[in-house]
Amino acid sequence: MPEALIIAAGRGSRLSRFYSPKPLTPILGLALIERIILTGKIAGVHEFKIVVGYEADKIRKELGNGIKYGVSIQYIDNPDWEKGNGVSVLKAKEYFHGQFLLLMSDHLFDENIINKLICHEMDSDHCALCIDKTISSDYFDLDDVTKVQTVAGKAESIGKSLDKFNAIDTGVFLCTPAIFEALEKSVAQGQFSLSAGNQILAREGRLETVDVSGCFWVDVDNEKALKKAKKTLIRRLFKPTDGPISKNVNRRLSTRLSAHLAYHDISPNAITLVSFSLAVLSAIFFYLGGYLFILFGGIIAQLSSVLDGCDGEIARLKFQFSTFGAWLDKVLDRYADGLIIMGITHALWISTNSEFVWLSGFLALTGTFMNSYTAAIYDDLIKTKALNGTAVRVGRDSRLFIIFIGALCNQLFLTLVILAAMTNAEAFRRLFVLKNIHISPAH
Amino acid sequence: MPEALIIAAGRGSRLSRFYSPKPLTPILGLALIERIILTGKIAGVHEFKIVVGYEADKIRKELGNGIKYGVSIQYIDNPDWEKGNGVSVLKAKEYFHGQFLLLMSDHLFDENIINKLICHEMDSDHCALCIDKTISSDYFDLDDVTKVQTVAGKAESIGKSLDKFNAIDTGVFLCTPAIFEALEKSVAQGQFSLSAGNQILAREGRLETVDVSGCFWVDVDNEKALKKAKKTLIRRLFKPTDGPISKNVNRRLSTRLSAHLAYHDISPNAITLVSFSLAVLSAIFFYLGGYLFILFGGIIAQLSSVLDGCDGEIARLKFQFSTFGAWLDKVLDRYADGLIIMGITHALWISTNSEFVWLSGFLALTGTFMNSYTAAIYDDLIKTKALNGTAVRVGRDSRLFIIFIGALCNQLFLTLVILAAMTNAEAFRRLFVLKNIHISPAH
Repeated sequence: MPEALIIAAGRGSRLSRFYSPKPLTPILGLALIERIILTGKIAGVHEFKIVVGYEADKIRKELGNGIKYGVSIQYIDNPDWEKGNGVSVLKAKEYFHGQFLLLMSDHLFDENIINKLICHEMDSDHCALCIDKTISSDYFDLDDVTKVQTVAGKAESIGKSLDKFNAIDTGVFLCTPAIFEALEKSVAQGQFSLSAGNQILAREGRLETVDVSGCFWVDVDNEKALKKAKKTLIRRLFKPTDGPISKNVNRRLSTRLSAHLAYHDISPNAITLVSFSLAVLSAIFFYLGGYLFILFGGIIAQLSSVLDGCDGEIARLKFQFSTFGAWLDKVLDRYADGLIIMGITHALWISTNSEFVWLSGFLALTGTFMNSYTAAIYDDLIKTKALNGTAVRVGRDSRLFIIFIGALCNQLFLTLVILAAMTNAEAFRRLFVLKNIHISPAH
Repeated sequence: MPEALIIAAGRGSRLSRFYSPKPLTPILGLALIERIILTGKIAGVHEFKIVVGYEADKIRKELGNGIKYGVSIQYIDNPDWEKGNGVSVLKAKEYFHGQFLLLMSDHLFDENIINKLICHEMDSDHCALCIDKTISSDYFDLDDVTKVQTVAGKAESIGKSLDKFNAIDTGVFLCTPAIFEALEKSVAQGQFSLSAGNQILAREGRLETVDVSGCFWVDVDNEKALKKAKKTLIRRLFKPTDGPISKNVNRRLSTRLSAHLAYHDISPNAITLVSFSLAVLSAIFFYLGGYLFILFGGIIAQLSSVLDGCDGEIARLKFQFSTFGAWLDKVLDRYADGLIIMGITHALWISTNSEFVWLSGFLALTGTFMNSYTAAIYDDLIKTKALNGTAVRVGRDSRLFIIFIGALCNQLFLTLVILAAMTNAEAFRRLFVLKNIHISPAH
């Protein structure tokens, strides 16, 4: 895995009116440059060199030696940062002798871009640039982006003022020392931008392009772009496996909540525990019986359900994902489900004294567990698109929403019967879906 | 993936007194040569050429063009099979121009041997032989095996009557046309065995060795070896994730049953359905209540539990594994668990009329499901040895055994309480085991 060079020496005047220096601009609880580092880390990069200039000390102080991110960070000083970002790259010349990633401190992107770029094979005296071919003025400020004309995997020309172009520069590069050669030439010509160096490489046929269209990236250049980036990061929290209730109710509420929570120092596991505690409280209210308690039980169950989305969202937003956290969430969700159904069954028992209530409760519990049990394999099929998207997914969000509505209407027995019927039918439906997808080996 | 050449032309006089020809000797429901083909298939080989001689027509008729195994089979005739197995290999000369696997029709082995062999890198005019360095007269008939003296990854000498040797020939080869050259030389010298050809390769420094010590393989050369092979195949059905009850009770019974069932045309899924039906019957008996029904319920639950091992065992024994079958088994097991606990709870309800019975039932059901739910990730940890083997594993076999004993003693409430306590404690224990294993990413 190559090391990464991050350019964080400029002033970024269009943003730094508010935040200074620009790489430390906070976005959903992390500074821009922290997001770059942590994205690189997910892709497997563990050694970073950062060129600093404008307010270098602030950046040094904030990021330290990288140990808090689980990576190593070294700094390269560029007192001449005002000349242009090409000069900043050139300052790193003596540190890199093989391939390295070149990243901008204000270009957010997802780790798949690095994954793609690293697989790219190129000559040892070429450089490669990730480009996006979806050119839409909707998404970019077309006047301001760096444009690329690419033919057969090579950039023919690159610059902000190209007339003819078919792609956009995403600001993510795989470089070799060739970039330093090119920048020395452009600096000698009095041009100090990275683009000028790239233009020379392009002219020499040494700037390859890697198409990453469809992957997330955004150049956070001004206030408008910062807002757009926030929106995009939030939008990316919606999952392909989200069912209709999640998509239209829970996820809309939970992402809004997460966008606020992200700015506080609250761990995903803490959110998991709060959500579980609410579910236990809901189960207790149901257990006690009577419409008022049932009503509270239903409302708190739905609150818990919304909050149950936030732990994963915060983990993804703030790079705090852990296998244990994901597992804790799943196990506690199952216990919460079990306790709430037990509470509902007990409320019905108090008012009806019928053993059918218990049997319905058992069936609802069994079906609910079966849906969670089969979800692991079923969700993978949805993700790999082996299933078409039309299949309505009945998940925890839907089940708790039904309980919420059932409690509002004081129709707990109907709720239990619907849950039992729906979840068990779904379990068998999934079984047959699997039967038709997996072809068993011959013989 | 290279093609495979299987030698099945000889008479194999020490076995064929009973079965003729030897490659069709049945062992646990499949002929020897069928096992070779299906093992190859699992490892990814889809093209087989089989050299036939003695009773060639019987073999042709039995195996056909391979379509029933999901592979392609072509036959090569060797009317001179009586001369020796080297002549049989030589008959294949015109069919192979690159690398190919050379397999014996009477050497059973597991697919990992092929996986290892295929990864072996060798010169284009060398051949490679899989060897086993665990030389124990316990396991082999040392007079009869082909011995190998290997030094630094190359066979120095090979033959049945070597005085000095440090490994055994497993009968699995990765060949190039070099083998044909060598056999032509040995045939010209009046020696017609494969070993003679290998001896020439070894002398020329062209016979490489691949150490597969520890992998399963067995040369089925006589009645004694056939019995030993059967025993080994059965012993391999025990799993590292088997808990104490499974290891000492269920698996012992189920493997014996499977050894019989294997000779009949009963699919694993049919066994799954019979086992599930027994569980439903058990649940009904429990539901009805009263000691006699409870007793029957307990006995049938244990029978169902034993039979529940057979589906997977037959699938592995007869290469009938399917993703759907494994999944059907799991889903129906969960329903069986749910129904039996519901039946037990109802039996207690009839006799006690206490709502605590239902609450205990709910907790036992929840804990039982949690154990199954966490098993997927937990079992992987056991397999990868991330957990030491000392952790007692409470699985379905243990739970149903407790129910069996509880029914015998007519102590259903105690059974339910034990199940509830045990399974929920286990669920939390697993959570903390995971917490200590997975180190969450920094930050």
